[in-house]
Amino acid sequence: MRRGIELLGPRDIEAASFAIIQDELEVPVEPSVRPVVERVIHATADFDFAHTLVFSDAAVERGVAALASGATVVADTTMVAAGINKRVLGGFGGSVRTFIGDADVAEEARRRGITRSAVSMERACGLSGPLIFAIGNAPTALVRLCELVEEGAMAPPELVVGVPVGFVNVVESKELLLSSGLTSIVARGRKGGSTVAVAICNALLYLASHDRRE
Amino acid sequence: MRRGIELLGPRDIEAASFAIIQDELEVPVEPSVRPVVERVIHATADFDFAHTLVFSDAAVERGVAALASGATVVADTTMVAAGINKRVLGGFGGSVRTFIGDADVAEEARRRGITRSAVSMERACGLSGPLIFAIGNAPTALVRLCELVEEGAMAPPELVVGVPVGFVNVVESKELLLSSGLTSIVARGRKGGSTVAVAICNALLYLASHDRRE
Repeated sequence: MRRGIELLGPRDIEAASFAIIQDELEVPVEPSVRPVVERVIHATADFDFAHTLVFSDAAVERGVAALASGATVVADTTMVAAGINKRVLGGFGGSVRTFIGDADVAEEARRRGITRSAVSMERACGLSGPLIFAIGNAPTALVRLCELVEEGAMAPPELVVGVPVGFVNVVESKELLLSSGLTSIVARGRKGGSTVAVAICNALLYLASHDRRE
Repeated sequence: MRRGIELLGPRDIEAASFAIIQDELEVPVEPSVRPVVERVIHATADFDFAHTLVFSDAAVERGVAALASGATVVADTTMVAAGINKRVLGGFGGSVRTFIGDADVAEEARRRGITRSAVSMERACGLSGPLIFAIGNAPTALVRLCELVEEGAMAPPELVVGVPVGFVNVVESKELLLSSGLTSIVARGRKGGSTVAVAICNALLYLASHDRRE
């Protein structure tokens, strides 16, 4: 191996990474949400998330319980769907669903002049069982989701991971979620993204696995 | 729609986003690389990348030419593979390959005590035609890739998008790539990730499409 590159096995790399994060993380973080905050920083190398992540009351506990009971995770994009640890999720009887790539979703979005993301949230109304939403990209998905619950078209999900990224309607969509009363984990501000949504879901999955082992 | 949420169609949202980025981007950026830098900021809402993205000589032009000629994009993770615009890539005759999920890769990695990412780069040696590597996560993939080219086991790729994220060996792996002489686009420092790798590849794809239309 090259000079300056440490020779470490895969597990040691992760352990060393978390040790650095714990060492450099200077903001006080609630112990109950700390594994989630640390995994987001691990996935982004961006300590801003220690300041911007907001957890509604018992959001981590509710998310972990839902995953342990076999919840379906509805992802807004195929990237989010690809990143969630399906081995662990499947071990609890859960699965990932995403509707963004469906041909009829694209057709309907075009016809109505709205985003595919918004239409794909409507498709999720047909799902049964406990649901967790992982929204890493589209503010329009988050807004439509809040509307569907308010209209009574969908039961309140167990958890909404609301971390879209960007410049238009992104901040506003997250504030809407925070004021909705739904159980949520939100990255306030412009930042977020698929990697953040995935890191949050996987942190919850690893907490659920850890609970099961004890 | 809600107060504070602008009513915009999908295309208008993207145009408005890029207008904000162009307005707020205060660092001078070379015109030839600007579409790539802007799309990375669009995907992350993080203006740090205007400072950290490094392009080797004619990297954008070479990447665009390779994609236009039907290059295969080798992704280090399924998230990167999921995010690349396959419709546009396929329109040029190209495709995405990723080996990280292969059962025999996992088995060999375990046996040799190295990462699956490193083994998956070895699998790419068997591919023919022009190759672009999109490494958004694993520094071990980037290091192994540089070694394989140096050892002569692989021809120099048309482009290496080297944007792993994290705390251990990440900075060093990118500096190794920068000193390798390979054609590369690198996000210097700790930051990077799947979304950054995808944004770079898609920016190149949209440039290639634009060239074709003219």
